[in-house]
Amino acid sequence: MTEHLLLQAAFKKPIARTPVWVMRQAGRYLPEYRATRAKAGDFLGLCKNVDLAVEVTLQPLDIIGVDGVILFSDILTPLEPMGLELSFNPSPVFANPLKSEADIDNLRVPDPAEGVPYVGAILKKLRVEVRDRVPVIGFAGAPFTLACYAVEGGGSKLFSKTKSLFFDQPKLAFKLMDKLTDMTISYLNYQIDSGAQMVQIFDTWAGSLCPDDYDRYVFPWVAKVFAGLKGQGLVPRCYYINGGAHLLERMAQTGADVVGLDWMSDLGTVKARIGHQVALQGNLDPNVLFASPDVIRSRVKEILDKWGKDSGHIFNLGHGIDKDVNPEHLKAMVAAVKEFSVR
Amino acid sequence: MTEHLLLQAAFKKPIARTPVWVMRQAGRYLPEYRATRAKAGDFLGLCKNVDLAVEVTLQPLDIIGVDGVILFSDILTPLEPMGLELSFNPSPVFANPLKSEADIDNLRVPDPAEGVPYVGAILKKLRVEVRDRVPVIGFAGAPFTLACYAVEGGGSKLFSKTKSLFFDQPKLAFKLMDKLTDMTISYLNYQIDSGAQMVQIFDTWAGSLCPDDYDRYVFPWVAKVFAGLKGQGLVPRCYYINGGAHLLERMAQTGADVVGLDWMSDLGTVKARIGHQVALQGNLDPNVLFASPDVIRSRVKEILDKWGKDSGHIFNLGHGIDKDVNPEHLKAMVAAVKEFSVR
Repeated sequence: MTEHLLLQAAFKKPIARTPVWVMRQAGRYLPEYRATRAKAGDFLGLCKNVDLAVEVTLQPLDIIGVDGVILFSDILTPLEPMGLELSFNPSPVFANPLKSEADIDNLRVPDPAEGVPYVGAILKKLRVEVRDRVPVIGFAGAPFTLACYAVEGGGSKLFSKTKSLFFDQPKLAFKLMDKLTDMTISYLNYQIDSGAQMVQIFDTWAGSLCPDDYDRYVFPWVAKVFAGLKGQGLVPRCYYINGGAHLLERMAQTGADVVGLDWMSDLGTVKARIGHQVALQGNLDPNVLFASPDVIRSRVKEILDKWGKDSGHIFNLGHGIDKDVNPEHLKAMVAAVKEFSVR
Repeated sequence: MTEHLLLQAAFKKPIARTPVWVMRQAGRYLPEYRATRAKAGDFLGLCKNVDLAVEVTLQPLDIIGVDGVILFSDILTPLEPMGLELSFNPSPVFANPLKSEADIDNLRVPDPAEGVPYVGAILKKLRVEVRDRVPVIGFAGAPFTLACYAVEGGGSKLFSKTKSLFFDQPKLAFKLMDKLTDMTISYLNYQIDSGAQMVQIFDTWAGSLCPDDYDRYVFPWVAKVFAGLKGQGLVPRCYYINGGAHLLERMAQTGADVVGLDWMSDLGTVKARIGHQVALQGNLDPNVLFASPDVIRSRVKEILDKWGKDSGHIFNLGHGIDKDVNPEHLKAMVAAVKEFSVR
């Protein structure tokens, strides 16, 4: 079995240099992605077209030289077979958001092999085509974040409907969380069975909660997801919150092997706080990629210097790469990581 | 001189109970505000109409019973006399954003009594009409946040133009920051001369910076603003960052008397970290106001209990109140603060 840099770093095993990948690396900043997407039609069509989804997943490996490829999909696709009608215009919209206890009772928890068969097919094909050059990363949305979308019917600035549900009817909210948690466990285990060698849980909206509410409404279900996953000690689990700087100690206690950081946290400070418990992934400000390659190189070096030379760090942006970034700038970032992080 | 609760708490002097006010308390959630605004026409017209601006400023005092009233204005109005053409549709837009060194050189730093005479007139009239029942609060945007709007030409998700300016051309960015700092000092001193009894600096977008960049691009100029203000020890200065949980120690060192918190931070934890240096303002999740009055009361009590009974806490929301909040819910919050915080 190849000792992939990414998996070694996630488990804090010795590495020759720091591995690097980028959230949303298969994305619109790449002309090659835009060409493939045009063939697929819309975004959801691309997610469900196995051949084209594999094609875009592999593009950053061949073009940018990242150390891992991540399943091309969306955190909301597994909600479709639960009974929610999803579309993208281009932001995600559910035609039938959850409005009542009956709506929540009616949610199904299907077998992912029947509900989202394309996800398994993509992962299996990816493993063949990647030829073990790098690991294949799977992912899912965390239960609270999925609940936000399902209750609001899409994105939101305040999530006031979702929060009102949790504040005023916690038992009903917890029933929803239980169903989403069961679904997420079987969905991620299906990904692992299909070949995912690392998994990341995105808890995009958990950062909008104060620490007490995170403890009440998020932590127990995330911990249950991690406890329910196959491959403990073999398939590293990463947990990412955008805007989670106030929740880092809690994130480190969920059972995650890797805590994904946005760019607000100082990597050196966070290493001192939770680096003895988990590996860390991050955390360059994505806006740095709009600066000149010289600036990009110096900012990469700053972050690598904050970590030092021991294992346990995976380089990444603190958030998804923006569609307007020049791919040459991302290449400069990846090259700098590879150059400056050699042990 | 009346010993106002708000000013006493800001300076950690003995208080009979915790004072409370709310960011954006003169706002669209109040039917009375909407009626006055309809008379004024557009938002900017209301900011410049002295009588009507005073009217909306006083509404939350009479209707809600807050312990302070805050000048009705916008952080961007003082950029108009600098040469930037401002409108609201309804988000702020500058018709001529800063694009070159010449644009920055051409910015004027006018006498606020000539540039924004309506602000002084509003404050003077407010002091008369408030009749010393509560203090009158002035405010300004912080230099970095103003720079973001002036460079982007309005709001932005990423602030990539502004950040590129700072990353790639720091000397030019600092020239802009110097001008905005000079303007902000004279603008706030003009407010103090016109009757403001406390001032708050809003650094809305500084939270989008990592700690190193905050140190490089924000801190020195905020500290310069506070050092340049009149009334040290008499007119408390509050400094608020939305999404500033990762910057609290730095905020406490700017020279602010009060650090304004969003709702992400746990008040008890923050008190232990920086409560020996500054007073704290905040920090209820604004979404709690969408919950039932019973829930609102219990959440208010949780926050008050975290602080305890010593002085140095000003109750507020962690962000501006939303336009869809029922005013009765805000009254329930204010009543709970007054009931539960009695010493």
